[in-house]
Amino acid sequence: MDNINIQLLLTGNELMVGDIIDSNSAMVAQMLLSKGLVIQRKVTIADDVALLINEIKQMSKQADILIINGGLGPTIDDLTAQAIAQTCQQPLQAHSEAVEHLKKWGGKRNIALDETHLKQAMLPKGANTIANKNGSALGFHLNFQQCDIYCTPGVPSELEVMMKEEILPKVQLTTNVFPHYQIIRLHTFGIGESKLQQLITTHFPQWPQEISLGFRAASPFLELKLTIAEKTHLSLLKQYKEQLQILLGDHILGELLDNTPSMAEYTVDLLKQSSDKITTAESCTGGLIASMITSVAGASNVFEAGYVTYSNSIKNEMLGVSTQIIEQFGAVSKEVVIEMAKGALEQSSADYVIAVSGIAGPDGGSQEKPVGTVWIAWGKKEKIQATHMCIKGSRLYFQSAVANRSLDLIRRELVASQESPMYLQKLQ
Amino acid sequence: MDNINIQLLLTGNELMVGDIIDSNSAMVAQMLLSKGLVIQRKVTIADDVALLINEIKQMSKQADILIINGGLGPTIDDLTAQAIAQTCQQPLQAHSEAVEHLKKWGGKRNIALDETHLKQAMLPKGANTIANKNGSALGFHLNFQQCDIYCTPGVPSELEVMMKEEILPKVQLTTNVFPHYQIIRLHTFGIGESKLQQLITTHFPQWPQEISLGFRAASPFLELKLTIAEKTHLSLLKQYKEQLQILLGDHILGELLDNTPSMAEYTVDLLKQSSDKITTAESCTGGLIASMITSVAGASNVFEAGYVTYSNSIKNEMLGVSTQIIEQFGAVSKEVVIEMAKGALEQSSADYVIAVSGIAGPDGGSQEKPVGTVWIAWGKKEKIQATHMCIKGSRLYFQSAVANRSLDLIRRELVASQESPMYLQKLQ
Repeated sequence: MDNINIQLLLTGNELMVGDIIDSNSAMVAQMLLSKGLVIQRKVTIADDVALLINEIKQMSKQADILIINGGLGPTIDDLTAQAIAQTCQQPLQAHSEAVEHLKKWGGKRNIALDETHLKQAMLPKGANTIANKNGSALGFHLNFQQCDIYCTPGVPSELEVMMKEEILPKVQLTTNVFPHYQIIRLHTFGIGESKLQQLITTHFPQWPQEISLGFRAASPFLELKLTIAEKTHLSLLKQYKEQLQILLGDHILGELLDNTPSMAEYTVDLLKQSSDKITTAESCTGGLIASMITSVAGASNVFEAGYVTYSNSIKNEMLGVSTQIIEQFGAVSKEVVIEMAKGALEQSSADYVIAVSGIAGPDGGSQEKPVGTVWIAWGKKEKIQATHMCIKGSRLYFQSAVANRSLDLIRRELVASQESPMYLQKLQ
Repeated sequence: MDNINIQLLLTGNELMVGDIIDSNSAMVAQMLLSKGLVIQRKVTIADDVALLINEIKQMSKQADILIINGGLGPTIDDLTAQAIAQTCQQPLQAHSEAVEHLKKWGGKRNIALDETHLKQAMLPKGANTIANKNGSALGFHLNFQQCDIYCTPGVPSELEVMMKEEILPKVQLTTNVFPHYQIIRLHTFGIGESKLQQLITTHFPQWPQEISLGFRAASPFLELKLTIAEKTHLSLLKQYKEQLQILLGDHILGELLDNTPSMAEYTVDLLKQSSDKITTAESCTGGLIASMITSVAGASNVFEAGYVTYSNSIKNEMLGVSTQIIEQFGAVSKEVVIEMAKGALEQSSADYVIAVSGIAGPDGGSQEKPVGTVWIAWGKKEKIQATHMCIKGSRLYFQSAVANRSLDLIRRELVASQESPMYLQKLQ
C-alpha cells in the first residue's frame, strides 16, 4: 500500500470551546511519521452522538485507517462506543476482557465498581479490545467498510502508551509501510521566509522534484525542511543540503535532530568550548539577554555579571559612561553602547560583551531616532564592534529580536564568521 | 439566528506531521465563546490545493460561517487564496488595498517588494480585505453559497488582533447574536487547581447549579470562570463572585476583561500609582525579573537599575555583599539575599527591591540545600523581609516561578495585603 489514507477524529466539548489545547493529535502524528505514515485529515467535534455517527460514516468511507481519540471514559459525555455501535449497527455488550480489566483496575485501587465504571466495558459487538496500561478504559478496534477503526482514550499518558505499544505495531502490520523517507531540518536565523524562498528560487531554478522543500517559522528561527520519499534519492538530498549550506552560510545554526536549541544555547555552548566568559550591559532589553543566557543549564561557567542600566544616570554610575557623552550623542548612540560595553568588560573581567541601547516603544521615539532604533556593541576588549538597526514591531518583538540578534552576533564572532548577516545588510 | 453553524478549517503541513501544536483554534474558540458562539466542527488538512478545494466546498455547504486559518503567506505552500479562487470559480487578481498594505509594510522595513511578496496581494475577485496590523498578508472575506468565509493568517499574534478587531465585530453583526450568558473570569495566582477545587467544595458544599464553574490553568495563573446561562441569574452570580473574593483574598489579582495582564504588569501598575521605583538583584533568575518588569511599556517610570550577580565575587563587587557572609552562610541564604537587597537599594536609590538567590539546577544542589531551594528578600529600605522555599521542576519552571512569586510579593506589599500567600504557608 503506497498511499495510505489515515484520518484522525477527535471528540470533546472542551476542544470546541478552547478550554484545552489539543496536543494529542501532534503526538499521534509524530508517532505515525516515525513509521513513515502521514495523517491526511483531522476532524474535531463535540461530544454528540449524532455528530459522531455522521462523521464516522463519512470518514470511514474515505480512510483506510481511522483513529478516534476521546470519549471512552465513564461519564455521560463519553459517547464513542455508542456512536460506533450505532454506525456499525451492532449492539453494545459487556466485553469480558474489558470487564476483567476494570475489576483488576478497581481492585488495585480499592474502588468498588459501579454502573458508571462498568459502562466503559460496554463495547460494540465484534470489537477487539486494546490494552490500556495507564487507565480504566480499554481501547478497541474494529473494521467497518474496509476501514480499520481504532478508538483511543483522551488522556495523553494513556494514549501515548497505547499508540506506541499496541496500535503502531498493528498499523505497521496492516499497512506494511516502513519509513519511506528521510527528513533533514536546517535551523536558520536572520533570514525571513520570503527572502529565503526568493534566494532558493534564484539559485536553484531547477530544484529537483524528488526533494520536497518546506519552511517552518518558529520565532526567532526559520526551519528549512528537505524531505525525500525514497531511499534512492539520499545522495541527491546530501548534495542539495551541501548546496544550501554554501548558499546560507552562517545563517544556518545547525542541523536539527531531537531537540531544538535556543539562540542562547548555541552561544553558551560555543563559549564553553572556548572557555570564555560573557557579560551584558542592557538598556532597552532590560535584562532579557542575561536571562536568556542564564536560562541555559551550566551558564555559570560562562556568565558572572550582567548590568541592567535602564536610566541615563545608572549608565554613568554602574558602567562609568560619561554623562557628557550621553548628553552629546544621546543614550541611543554608537558612543554610548561602546562605553557601556567597555565599562561592563572592565567591571566583570569577562572576555566577551554585549551592550544594547534602543527605543523599545511605544513611546520615546523621535524623527531622527524612531521607535525600533537600537545600537548594539559586541565583541572582545581588543575588538568591540557596533552597529545599529531599526526593528519594527511590538515592544516584546523588538526586545526579543534585539536579544536574539545580539546573541547571534557573538555566535558569529565565536565561529569566526567572515560574513555579514542579512539583518545588517538591509541597512546598507 | 439561533443555531449558527460555525466551522474552522486549519491548513498547514506542520499541523499534519505534529511539528507544531495548534493553539490557534483554542484562541478562536475562546473569542467566539465570549460572544456566545460555539464552533461546531474543526477540520485540519495539509497545504494541498485539491484537498483544500474539496474541504472548502463541503464545509461551506454546511456552515453559516467558515473561518480558514493559515496559508496566506508568501511561500509556495501558502495556497488558501488559490484554493478559494478555484472553489468560487473566480480569478485571482492583485487587490489594490493588499498591494498598498504590502508597500507600506515593506517601506517601513526597507524591504524592496518582489514577486514572492506580491503573491500575498493576489486575492480572489470579489473578496474584501481584512486589516492585519501585525503582518504582511491581509486577511480576506467573501460569501460563497450563503456561507461567510473568513481567511486568516496562521501567525498567532496576527490572528489574535485580526479576530478581535475585525472578524468578531463582523460575525456579531451578521449573526445578530449577543452574549446570551455572562462570564466572569477571576485571575488568580499562587493556588493550584486541585487546592482551589478543594477549597471551593469545602466552602460551598451547595454550589448553585445555575452557575457553572470552570478552571483554566494558564501558567503562572489560574483562571476561575463563572458562567450563567440566563440573565435572571445575574444577582446570584454577583453574590457568589463576592463570596469567592472573600475566600481567595489577595490570591485574586483582578477580574479579566479584554486582556490578560502579566504578573509584571500588575506590579508595575501599582508602582506607577504610588510613584515608587523598584530595583532587582538577581542570582538564580539571571535577569529574568528585570526583563519581566521592563517588558511592560512605561517601565522606565518605575525601573532604573538591575543587578545580575551570578557569581559570588560579583555579588561582593557589584552589591557589596561581604565575602565573609557568603563564606559563612553560603550564597543561597537569608543573610546574603538581605545584603543583596540592601546593596541594590543603596546603589540605585530605588524605593522597592527584590533580591533572589537559589539553585536552579540541574546541578549545584546539596542535601541541605537541594535543587529548587531559593531565598527571596523583598520590600522597602525600612522593611526588608526574607523567605525561602523549594520549588521543584525544570530549570525554566524554577526561574519563572521564582520571578513571578517575587513580583507577587511586591504586589502584595503595594496593596498592603495582610494575608500570607499559599505558596509560603506550605512551608509552615
